Amino acid sequence: MEIGVYGLGRFGFFWADLLSEFINVKAFSRSLKRLTPPKVERVSEEEVLKCPVIFFCNAISSFEEVIKRIAGRLKPNTLIMDTCSVKVIPAKIMEKYLPENIKIIATHPMFGPDSAKKSYKGLPIIICPIRAKNEIVTEWIDFFSSIKLKTIKMTPEDHDYQAAYTQGITHYVGRVLADLDLKESKIGTVGYNKLLEIKEQTCNDPWQLFLDLQKFNPYTKEMREKLHDSLDKIYKKLDSSLDMS
Amino acid sequence: MEIGVYGLGRFGFFWADLLSEFINVKAFSRSLKRLTPPKVERVSEEEVLKCPVIFFCNAISSFEEVIKRIAGRLKPNTLIMDTCSVKVIPAKIMEKYLPENIKIIATHPMFGPDSAKKSYKGLPIIICPIRAKNEIVTEWIDFFSSIKLKTIKMTPEDHDYQAAYTQGITHYVGRVLADLDLKESKIGTVGYNKLLEIKEQTCNDPWQLFLDLQKFNPYTKEMREKLHDSLDKIYKKLDSSLDMS
Repeated sequence: MEIGVYGLGRFGFFWADLLSEFINVKAFSRSLKRLTPPKVERVSEEEVLKCPVIFFCNAISSFEEVIKRIAGRLKPNTLIMDTCSVKVIPAKIMEKYLPENIKIIATHPMFGPDSAKKSYKGLPIIICPIRAKNEIVTEWIDFFSSIKLKTIKMTPEDHDYQAAYTQGITHYVGRVLADLDLKESKIGTVGYNKLLEIKEQTCNDPWQLFLDLQKFNPYTKEMREKLHDSLDKIYKKLDSSLDMS
Repeated sequence: MEIGVYGLGRFGFFWADLLSEFINVKAFSRSLKRLTPPKVERVSEEEVLKCPVIFFCNAISSFEEVIKRIAGRLKPNTLIMDTCSVKVIPAKIMEKYLPENIKIIATHPMFGPDSAKKSYKGLPIIICPIRAKNEIVTEWIDFFSSIKLKTIKMTPEDHDYQAAYTQGITHYVGRVLADLDLKESKIGTVGYNKLLEIKEQTCNDPWQLFLDLQKFNPYTKEMREKLHDSLDKIYKKLDSSLDMS
């Protein structure tokens, strides 16, 4: 069994390296500057596209352009899996451009080089079957389970909705707290220290990743509006209480 | 050595009970419904006001009325300490109404029956000397240290400013998150779970306590405005980035 990894950015390197512990991995990157993990075979674009299973580890911002360009060059029955942090848009792009004879499973490994530093075991990977028979999906769920990932099957819509109201809101609040420039305080309460941890958990990632998560998830706009509404509501509720007294 | 505790609400009961492990405590409450801790002697208002040291454990909302009413009934050289969660306003009230021969230290034990459930040891108490000789202040700092509290001396202004940007902002964010009705999610990240914990840490307290903390701290208005400004800034920064693309 042999798989391809397309893209060797920060996540692609991490993902190819992890998979190469269990499977033969061939990887391609457009950038010659990118490093290759020790057990991975670096190959040309032509060669990676010949693999029967290919993981795409591109940024969501270049995803459509890449899929459009390679769509006609895949062998029939190839299984394509993306690893983007949002799922509705990549799933639509893959369905739109990839020929009917190409199988599609959208995935979101919800971890990366930082969060899996100690171990990736027990961390979640979301599986969204798009165009693949049950047995193929089950085969991959079994594989991910066998390497001790926590597999969760859901639709792209469920994933993006839940992600908007968990990861999306956390990163948004983190950016607001960072802008407020909150600092450690000797009178900081337990709750306040958790607030500081949220800032640390979210603001080490580049602004571009934050932007992409907000931009390419169809549910984050509603989430941001709801957050604003709730803040306004508390602000006004407080103001009217304070005026009354 | 004998001290008085004025007020046996939720915090007053807890505080009288804690102190009675080390000192003889007499306590008064206007409400006959209030319970008395086992080692504490329940006394009349007249009698509690005769104690050489009196802790006031009233709600900040009734603090001015109480201090005004008892101010003329204290023995010369009595030491008065309040335990309100804000410090600028109680300190001003005590300075305004209590005669020159009354000593004043404002305090804020930054814990209560919930946070000190397992142990109060190591938890912080803020000490703001208002009208007391150094040796008296030192004596009380030594006492609190001897019972293993972490004593921190600061001005009422420093306390309220720091509290607005730690406890105040945490409770405010907690109320906003509660209004959004966020729930546990199987795809919740580490950061998101911390967000949920903030909600839990802040929203068990009654709305009135939240209101009092925001109302009687002169710095929370500015904090709330800054939080709004930061949220608007991120909202607009995001909007313009998303429009550009």
